[in-house]
Amino acid sequence: MSKGLTSRNEDYSQWYNELVTKADLAEHSAVRGCMVIKPYGYSIWEKMQAALDKMFKDTGHSNAYFPLFIPKSFFSKEASHVEGFATECAVVTHYRLKNDGNGNIIVDEDAKLEEELIVRPTSETIIWNTYRGWIQSYRDLPILVNQWANVVRWEMRTRLFLRTAEFLWQEGHTAHATSEEAISEAEKMLEVYADFAENWLAVPVVKGIKTANERFAGAVETYCIEALMQDGKALQAGTSHFLGQNFAKAFDVKFTSKEGKLDHVWATSWGVSTRLMGALIMAHSDDSGLVLPPKLAPIQVVIVPINKGEEELARITAVADDLIVQLKQKGISVKYDDRDTQRPGFKFAEYEMKGVPVRVAVGGRDLENGTAEIARRDTREKQTVSREDLAERIEQLLEDIQKNIYQKALSFRNENTTEVNSYEEFKQVLDEKGGFVLAHWDGTSETEQKIKEETKATIRCIPLQNTQEDGVCIFSGKPSTQRVLFARAY
Amino acid sequence: MSKGLTSRNEDYSQWYNELVTKADLAEHSAVRGCMVIKPYGYSIWEKMQAALDKMFKDTGHSNAYFPLFIPKSFFSKEASHVEGFATECAVVTHYRLKNDGNGNIIVDEDAKLEEELIVRPTSETIIWNTYRGWIQSYRDLPILVNQWANVVRWEMRTRLFLRTAEFLWQEGHTAHATSEEAISEAEKMLEVYADFAENWLAVPVVKGIKTANERFAGAVETYCIEALMQDGKALQAGTSHFLGQNFAKAFDVKFTSKEGKLDHVWATSWGVSTRLMGALIMAHSDDSGLVLPPKLAPIQVVIVPINKGEEELARITAVADDLIVQLKQKGISVKYDDRDTQRPGFKFAEYEMKGVPVRVAVGGRDLENGTAEIARRDTREKQTVSREDLAERIEQLLEDIQKNIYQKALSFRNENTTEVNSYEEFKQVLDEKGGFVLAHWDGTSETEQKIKEETKATIRCIPLQNTQEDGVCIFSGKPSTQRVLFARAY
Repeated sequence: MSKGLTSRNEDYSQWYNELVTKADLAEHSAVRGCMVIKPYGYSIWEKMQAALDKMFKDTGHSNAYFPLFIPKSFFSKEASHVEGFATECAVVTHYRLKNDGNGNIIVDEDAKLEEELIVRPTSETIIWNTYRGWIQSYRDLPILVNQWANVVRWEMRTRLFLRTAEFLWQEGHTAHATSEEAISEAEKMLEVYADFAENWLAVPVVKGIKTANERFAGAVETYCIEALMQDGKALQAGTSHFLGQNFAKAFDVKFTSKEGKLDHVWATSWGVSTRLMGALIMAHSDDSGLVLPPKLAPIQVVIVPINKGEEELARITAVADDLIVQLKQKGISVKYDDRDTQRPGFKFAEYEMKGVPVRVAVGGRDLENGTAEIARRDTREKQTVSREDLAERIEQLLEDIQKNIYQKALSFRNENTTEVNSYEEFKQVLDEKGGFVLAHWDGTSETEQKIKEETKATIRCIPLQNTQEDGVCIFSGKPSTQRVLFARAY
Repeated sequence: MSKGLTSRNEDYSQWYNELVTKADLAEHSAVRGCMVIKPYGYSIWEKMQAALDKMFKDTGHSNAYFPLFIPKSFFSKEASHVEGFATECAVVTHYRLKNDGNGNIIVDEDAKLEEELIVRPTSETIIWNTYRGWIQSYRDLPILVNQWANVVRWEMRTRLFLRTAEFLWQEGHTAHATSEEAISEAEKMLEVYADFAENWLAVPVVKGIKTANERFAGAVETYCIEALMQDGKALQAGTSHFLGQNFAKAFDVKFTSKEGKLDHVWATSWGVSTRLMGALIMAHSDDSGLVLPPKLAPIQVVIVPINKGEEELARITAVADDLIVQLKQKGISVKYDDRDTQRPGFKFAEYEMKGVPVRVAVGGRDLENGTAEIARRDTREKQTVSREDLAERIEQLLEDIQKNIYQKALSFRNENTTEVNSYEEFKQVLDEKGGFVLAHWDGTSETEQKIKEETKATIRCIPLQNTQEDGVCIFSGKPSTQRVLFARAY
C-alpha cells in the first residue's frame, strides 16, 4: 500500500478518485471514457448483480438478451426518445478494415453500412421492435423481461463508475395489457430498488417522481430513488419508468384484449447501473479507505497473524484454520493472510483501504490467553476478546456493522435535509451546508430551469406520499401545495 | 404449439432452425447477423454460465471487465493477430448524430473520431495493454482473470447460436512468470472445458491441439475440444491458447523475476461462447424437439393435470402441491401447468419441444389408484407408477437421463469415428457416412490445405495422448507417426 488518501475535507473529488484506484476497484482505460473494472471492484458488482437478479426473479421476471446495435432509424420513431438518446452515441459506419499496402490498417471504404448502427445507449427501441413479434393477444401478456448488458453514452467529462462512456447495467422492459398494471409494475420495481439500496447497499433513499424536465426521454412518468453522498450532493441511484403506449405506438405493437378489442400495449422500463458502485463508495467510505456493507463485501473477515518466527506462525495458523471452518459453515467469506512478504501494519492498512468489515489479528499473547483482537472497519474500534464463541460474535458483528452503516448514513441524511422558505435561504443552505433542500415550487418547468441556471440545484424528485401543505414557491411566490426535493447532484 | 418439426433426416439444417424458433430459444433481430436470445434460451445459457463460473473460481480465477472498444492501432501491434481479427469487424467512426433540419437523423461529420474504435472481436490487445500497468514483479503474477462479455465478428453467413455477428462468451486472460506455468494453465482450462462439456452438456469431446493453420491468431499453441453433431459434422466447443510472450512483447509487458532478471510475461487465453447452445441443441435433440440434460434444464419436471371438471382439478392440485414441496426440497425445479386454456396433449407437445426432462401426468384414475404417469423426454418412455417415493424416483430418473444422454452421444460418436488408410476411403467415408475420420497426415500445411480444398474436411485436432504408430499420409504418401482427427465442421 502506498501512502494514504487525500482527506474528504481537503478535496472530496480527489479523495474519491484516489480511493477508487487504491482500493483496486477500477481504472481508466486506453479508450477515452471507458473504464476497466478490476477484479476486486467487479466482485462487489457481482454481489450486487446476484442480489438484484434474485429480487427480479422473485418478482416474476426472466432474463433475455437483445442486440448491442440499434439501426439509426429506430431512434427517430419515438419523438422525445430521439432527442434524449440519439445525440451523443457511438456510431458504427463500417464493417471491415484492410491493410493499405504500407503496413497500416485502415477502414475499408467499400465496407460502408447502408444504414449506420448505434451502440445501444438504452434498448427500448430494439426491444419494442422485437416485442411486436411476440405479442398478439392478452394471453401473451405480461412480458416481464430483464437484460444485463453494457451500454454506451458518449460522455465528454467522465468519472469512474459515476459517469463513463461505457457502463454495465440491467434494464427491465415489460409489456402489459392495461395502464394500471404497467404503473403498478413501475412502482413495484421502484420498491425493489429502494429495498436493495437500503438493505444491501445500506444507503437510505428518497423515493419520488421526476418532474417533466428530468423525465426519461419517452416516459410518461419517471420514478426514482435519490441518495445523499457525504459531500452533500445527491445521486440518482435507480429509475423506473411508466412509458404509457409511447413505444408500442412507435413500433406498432398491438394486442387483442379479452373483449376482442385491438389496443396498443402498455410499457415500463427500469434500470440500475455500475453507478451504484459510486453510490456505495461515496456514501460510507472514510479517509482510511473503503467501508463496505458486509452483505456486499467480497471478503467479510480477514485474519492476520502477528507472529515471531515460524513455530508461532504454525500455532496461529492452527487457530485460524479452526475459525475459518466455523465462519465458512455460517456462510461468511474469510481470508487468511499469512504472506511473509508484508508486515501486519501494511496488511491492516490494505484491508482498511479495501473495506473488509472485520479484521481478526492473532499474536503470541493471544495464543497464551485464548484471545484474539477483532477490529470493525466501520467504527475502527478494536477489542481483545476470548476466542470462545468467536465465530458467533463475528456473525453478530457483521449484522451490527450492516445496520450501523445504514443508520450512520440515515443520520447524515437527516442532518443534511433542510426545509427552507425563501430563495435567499435556499441559496445559503446550498452554498454553506449542501444536502437535500425541501422547498415549495410552483410546478412550472420555467421556474425549475431558472433555479437550476442560477444555483445548479435541480429538483431531484417530488417525494412519494409527500405531505400536502399550503405554501408559496421560493422563486416565483406563486401558490404551492407541497415541498419538493432540491439538491446539487452527480 | 404449431405443427411439428421438419425431421432431421429430411433436412437437418431446417430442423435446427425450426427447433431454435419453436423451442423459444432465440430469433433473428432487426440487425443483420445479431440474435435475440429469448428468455427460455437465456435461462439455459445462465445455467451454463453459473456452472462454468463456479469452475473458474474453484480454479482460482476472478472476473473483471474491460472496454467494449479497442483503438484500431492496438490490432497492428501483434502481427498475426491483426490478420485474424482486424478484418471483419464493426468500426466506430463517429460519436454524435444530429438532426439535418428536415427531421432526419444523420451522422454529425464534425464528430469524427481521431482514431477509429473497433468493437472487440476478442480482448487480448486491450487487456495486455492494461496488464502493462498491473505487472512489475513476479509478486504480481500470476494474474488469473476472466471476463463475461459480448463480442462482435462481422459474419456474412449467420446461424442462430452457431455463427452470429454478436455473441456472448467468456474470455480468460492469464499472465505468468514462466512458460511452463502458462502451458499448464492452458491445459488446465482445456480440462475444465472438457469436464463441463461431458458432465453438464452431456457431450463427449475429443481434446487435442490445433494445427498451425487452425491456430488462434497470435497463439503459440491452441488446445481445443471437438464434439460430433448428429449430422456427422464436428463442432469446436471451446479453445484454450498458450500465447507465449507474443502479446507481452507487443504491449511491452515485462516483470522482474525472483532472481532480479527482467523478462516478458507469459500468457494464455481461453473461451467458450453461446455457440455451446448450438452444440447442446444439435447433440441431443430429436424430431419432437429439444432434449436437455437435466443439469442444464431450466424446468426439470413439469406436472400436468388430466382432469374432468373443477373438483377433480382441486384434488389433483393437492397431489401436485405435495410433490412440488418434495421435489423443491431436493433442489429440483418443477412447474405445475394447470392452464385451462390448453388441452393436455398440447401441453405434452410443448414440453417435449422445450426438452423438459421429466413429465408427470395425474388424472382421475391416478387419484383412485395412488399412481401417476411419468414420462422421460430422452427415450419418450412412459410408465404408470405408485405415488409413494415418487420424488425419490424422479430424482433418480433425472440422474439416469443425464447419464443416458451422454452415453447415447458417446455411442453415436464411437459409431461415427472411422479409421481410414487411403484418400479414396477418406473421401468415401466423408461423403457416405460423415463423422470423425482418423487418418495419417504428413504434418504439412500444404497437404492440410489441399485436403480442405478438395473435400471441405479440416483437421479438427491432433488428439492429446494420441497413439503413436507408423503410417503414410493419405494424401502425399509421406511417412507419418500418428493419425489426426478430420471432419467437416460447423
